[in-house]
Amino acid sequence: MNAKKLHFGIIGAGRIGRVHAESVSFRLPEADILSIYDVNRPAAEALAAHCGIPKIAASADEIFSDPRIDAVLICSSTETHADLIVRAAQAGKHIFCEKPIAFALERIDAALAAVAKAGVKLQIGFNRRFDSNFARVRNAVRSGEIGKPCLVHIVSRDPAPPPIGYVRTSGGLFLDMMIHDFDMARFLTGDDVDEVYTAAGVLADPAIGEAGDLDTAVVVLQFKSGAIGTIDNSRKAVFGYDQRVEILGSEGKIATENRFPNEVVVSNGKSVYSDLPLNFFMDRYTESFAQELKEFVQAVLDGKPTPVTGADSRAPVIMALAARRSYDEHRPVRVAEVEG
Amino acid sequence: MNAKKLHFGIIGAGRIGRVHAESVSFRLPEADILSIYDVNRPAAEALAAHCGIPKIAASADEIFSDPRIDAVLICSSTETHADLIVRAAQAGKHIFCEKPIAFALERIDAALAAVAKAGVKLQIGFNRRFDSNFARVRNAVRSGEIGKPCLVHIVSRDPAPPPIGYVRTSGGLFLDMMIHDFDMARFLTGDDVDEVYTAAGVLADPAIGEAGDLDTAVVVLQFKSGAIGTIDNSRKAVFGYDQRVEILGSEGKIATENRFPNEVVVSNGKSVYSDLPLNFFMDRYTESFAQELKEFVQAVLDGKPTPVTGADSRAPVIMALAARRSYDEHRPVRVAEVEG
Amino acid sequence: MNAKKLHFGIIGAGRIGRVHAESVSFRLPEADILSIYDVNRPAAEALAAHCGIPKIAASADEIFSDPRIDAVLICSSTETHADLIVRAAQAGKHIFCEKPIAFALERIDAALAAVAKAGVKLQIGFNRRFDSNFARVRNAVRSGEIGKPCLVHIVSRDPAPPPIGYVRTSGGLFLDMMIHDFDMARFLTGDDVDEVYTAAGVLADPAIGEAGDLDTAVVVLQFKSGAIGTIDNSRKAVFGYDQRVEILGSEGKIATENRFPNEVVVSNGKSVYSDLPLNFFMDRYTESFAQELKEFVQAVLDGKPTPVTGADSRAPVIMALAARRSYDEHRPVRVAEVEG
Amino acid sequence: MNAKKLHFGIIGAGRIGRVHAESVSFRLPEADILSIYDVNRPAAEALAAHCGIPKIAASADEIFSDPRIDAVLICSSTETHADLIVRAAQAGKHIFCEKPIAFALERIDAALAAVAKAGVKLQIGFNRRFDSNFARVRNAVRSGEIGKPCLVHIVSRDPAPPPIGYVRTSGGLFLDMMIHDFDMARFLTGDDVDEVYTAAGVLADPAIGEAGDLDTAVVVLQFKSGAIGTIDNSRKAVFGYDQRVEILGSEGKIATENRFPNEVVVSNGKSVYSDLPLNFFMDRYTESFAQELKEFVQAVLDGKPTPVTGADSRAPVIMALAARRSYDEHRPVRVAEVEG
Repeated sequence: MNAKKLHFGIIGAGRIGRVHAESVSFRLPEADILSIYDVNRPAAEALAAHCGIPKIAASADEIFSDPRIDAVLICSSTETHADLIVRAAQAGKHIFCEKPIAFALERIDAALAAVAKAGVKLQIGFNRRFDSNFARVRNAVRSGEIGKPCLVHIVSRDPAPPPIGYVRTSGGLFLDMMIHDFDMARFLTGDDVDEVYTAAGVLADPAIGEAGDLDTAVVVLQFKSGAIGTIDNSRKAVFGYDQRVEILGSEGKIATENRFPNEVVVSNGKSVYSDLPLNFFMDRYTESFAQELKEFVQAVLDGKPTPVTGADSRAPVIMALAARRSYDEHRPVRVAEVEG
Repeated sequence: MNAKKLHFGIIGAGRIGRVHAESVSFRLPEADILSIYDVNRPAAEALAAHCGIPKIAASADEIFSDPRIDAVLICSSTETHADLIVRAAQAGKHIFCEKPIAFALERIDAALAAVAKAGVKLQIGFNRRFDSNFARVRNAVRSGEIGKPCLVHIVSRDPAPPPIGYVRTSGGLFLDMMIHDFDMARFLTGDDVDEVYTAAGVLADPAIGEAGDLDTAVVVLQFKSGAIGTIDNSRKAVFGYDQRVEILGSEGKIATENRFPNEVVVSNGKSVYSDLPLNFFMDRYTESFAQELKEFVQAVLDGKPTPVTGADSRAPVIMALAARRSYDEHRPVRVAEVEG
Repeated sequence: MNAKKLHFGIIGAGRIGRVHAESVSFRLPEADILSIYDVNRPAAEALAAHCGIPKIAASADEIFSDPRIDAVLICSSTETHADLIVRAAQAGKHIFCEKPIAFALERIDAALAAVAKAGVKLQIGFNRRFDSNFARVRNAVRSGEIGKPCLVHIVSRDPAPPPIGYVRTSGGLFLDMMIHDFDMARFLTGDDVDEVYTAAGVLADPAIGEAGDLDTAVVVLQFKSGAIGTIDNSRKAVFGYDQRVEILGSEGKIATENRFPNEVVVSNGKSVYSDLPLNFFMDRYTESFAQELKEFVQAVLDGKPTPVTGADSRAPVIMALAARRSYDEHRPVRVAEVEG
Repeated sequence: MNAKKLHFGIIGAGRIGRVHAESVSFRLPEADILSIYDVNRPAAEALAAHCGIPKIAASADEIFSDPRIDAVLICSSTETHADLIVRAAQAGKHIFCEKPIAFALERIDAALAAVAKAGVKLQIGFNRRFDSNFARVRNAVRSGEIGKPCLVHIVSRDPAPPPIGYVRTSGGLFLDMMIHDFDMARFLTGDDVDEVYTAAGVLADPAIGEAGDLDTAVVVLQFKSGAIGTIDNSRKAVFGYDQRVEILGSEGKIATENRFPNEVVVSNGKSVYSDLPLNFFMDRYTESFAQELKEFVQAVLDGKPTPVTGADSRAPVIMALAARRSYDEHRPVRVAEVEG
């Protein structure tokens, strides 16, 4: 056995837990999973069988107290994240946790404090940073390929509204969906946002409005550098998962397109057409999920900083809270107001 | 001679005057130009020679009082538009006038009143409506091809900042440049805007800031229907004239690309590349300039309404004034505030 | 009147005659048409009225003998070309003639001899050379942008088979349709072809086969330089006029796409689609028709060589004859065999 | 353990052996590898360690005689394929073998006879059939989406010539490289080829010519249906791995583009550009390698025919031999001539 192999325990055997378990088991030879826990034991058993995970733990603590385990993958529901981070940190485990840590800043701060005190590594699952498109844009900005960013546009639309039950516990559009885009805004530009202004509505599904949420929103971002950005979210883009960015810089423009299942174009007597873009976030971002874990494993094995830090997990939540406040109060809101 | 031929007089022999004179002379067999006036007589003479215009008028009034002339093309500087419209209307001439009529609402209203009183036809030079891309988008919205518009994005960027002398008398970014996009927002959606919010700055050229103007702006539009839009303007897109729109509707998305001088792609050892998009608005919109005149001529000959009405000339000015107020007061501004 | 204005007479008021007459009358201020002749006098009268041509000639000779006329546009049917060239040359007129001069080499050679003897300028209407796409490819090859050409592919397909009456007198696929592509092969590479091999059939319209012609063909070209090419012709591409080239060179690849009426893309629940490419050769090549005449006029006015010479008119006919012989004899045929 | 799990032995730990071992070990939960053999034992050991293969066999026969093993992956050098297929078949193992079985028809026929006699399943590694682009084209043809195929173009170019040592033992351009495209021609159309004509040369690397091989070729295909095709091969496309097909059918056209590492477009002051297409066949065809094995495993587990049969392995070799003969004898060659 390779002395540099990283041993994981995983908490949560749902959809995203399965993605990460498959990545570690089938695509990352430098890591393995020794133990799995889920409140739903049959789910844990099924995933263990699928991925060859040798042990079903009876509790999260059984994973935290397992001395063979180096790091934990926290893939359980959002409301458990902050507490599990604290307990994992106290047990000295490195932590890869799905986004967001929590909806409330005090809970995030408590988790980050525990991580800092224990000196363990933490990475938050902002997987889109590891997508080859967005990583390419980040590199262009960093290298000066397009000069200084002036205008930044992020489009992020789901193919169809989620079940209304999901909407009710999701934390709302800004904390559930746009949080990825707030992270993207910071990641792509390497800049922070001073102020936001939100225009939003219920245009896709009235049930979302009845549940007190929004399904369509444009948030204007005022970056510290002076650059101006927009984020465009919709819960309903009937043609598929619509995820693009464009940055106009002083020396050029960079833009991404969606990802398609093939590069085929058909021309018939009516139109020139191609198949729809990838529809499901797990297909669209498959490689990014594997890549974020690969970089986490490498950071832990090499004793280097993880590529998505605790601070990176905090800023998008603040931006989301400011965006909602802007909508509620119908005025531009400085991020510092929320931070306070 | 064809009884249905429309006889123009033209006032203004500058850049846009030349475009219109060439369209009438070389591309519209159903119309001709009988007389031209420009405060700079040699300019008028040169254009007359180029286009075969038989007469150089000594004044605008000489055109207005010429009984053979059916319609006038007003291509002189912006501050003269309103007064010339009034005089042309009083002379019973149909009017094609470059945008905008004026920067002040009262002057616009006076001109429109004169037109209404005289019962002549008026068309304002919002040429982009006649571009095959934007016309195609308008048709898609009108026909329901993409369902109900939810999110509307208009990008409109110049290749390079204009001379600072031009900036000083231009009326500012919103009245000079974004006015086309305000018109486009109304045209594409068939909807009106209730409220705007402006984020803007000086990111392209400090001299523009010193002249009291802005060079980069995002304006958020709240449409009456509930749809949300953005307009993105920049005075500096180094790769060329960047003019695109995208609309997300309830049943689909429609988007336009820029226009290129050719459809050639080269792949070498470094990249896959194509030539830059058309750089100059006259190349980009060549066909639209001819088309808007063609439709004006047809409307007059057939006694039908022109495709861009007086009301269409007024609304974008109001939106521009509201956008500037939003920037100055750092708050969303209802269009009705300015209208009042 | 400008001393440098070129005065044309035009013979032929059909489809292509109208194109050229409009170009000269409405788009080329440096030229005009003084006289028109067509065997069908009402056609000549209609075009004269449309373009403001002052005189209807009673015969071609009336044009040739008109001392005010500098150059003739020969747009009559193909079988008249060679004879008209001879008579025009004898009358000392410069000649712009539609392709091809004739189907038989001896008639071409007689016409070229008359032109040479008279010292007049001759340009053949290989308009595609003046298309911005193909001109861009030519420039890339000439400038070394893609290195030395190795593989050359020319695709040239009509939207739908022509009327069978047209097919019967057309000279056949190789002389009527592929002749443009033979010219393109020489133009793009600046190279000549040594040998051809033809694979062809009747796949689009059985009536074409019954008329003794082919509707689908691939001709392999062996260039003198060693480069290998193909020409792909079909009489039926249901989506529109399909005109593309691709060259693989030692340092890169260059490829063209079709031209579309707009740059719009729609995404709905079924596909991502755009409108069909331009369907009609006159729409596709509008600019090239104006450009070839512009360059002819300039060459005559400046006393410089025309951009498509007599030799350029001869080579594609030889290639067409060789391609047909290759099909008939089912073997590769050296161009020199036909030339002999 | 899943009763339906398929147990492999693998012969060959080189480049393609590694690809298949990784697919089975990390991406196909329904299969595993129990044993590996390579003439180079350290290579076998390294791959075993990487993929968790428990046993290093001392010979191929040790794999064939292992009763736990259901199927073998033959990834050794081409000259060993035919013999290993015979021995594996005699041992009752199902066989997945890399292409081609052999360069000589009699050896292929002997191997296929052994497979038939043993009643085992055989699949040849024509992985491109499983690429999402080519599979999409195949489906379009099969479903009638573009009508009846009329013109078929296959482009297949390597980024750079292989080492000259490889060229010498490769079997030559037609058997080594174009063999994939001969398979593709049959696969995409569902049709067979009657006759070929080859134009070829040495344009990329003189050393290839000195070794008696060709580096650039166009082969014309006459399909039984009447459709006409071309295959274009080059050993040097400096921009990357160039793999595309286009089919013109009676009701439309279908075409594929290359695959790129991202969907990013940058526009600066010089051009509009994107990164180069994938350069390495293993990156370009990653998914197809996993997919072909997945379908093989499924076919064996379900007792159904494999998707690439023995006959499919034979036809491209015959086409390659005919294409070479056409080049050598400078004439069209009927495939039946080679078939003997």
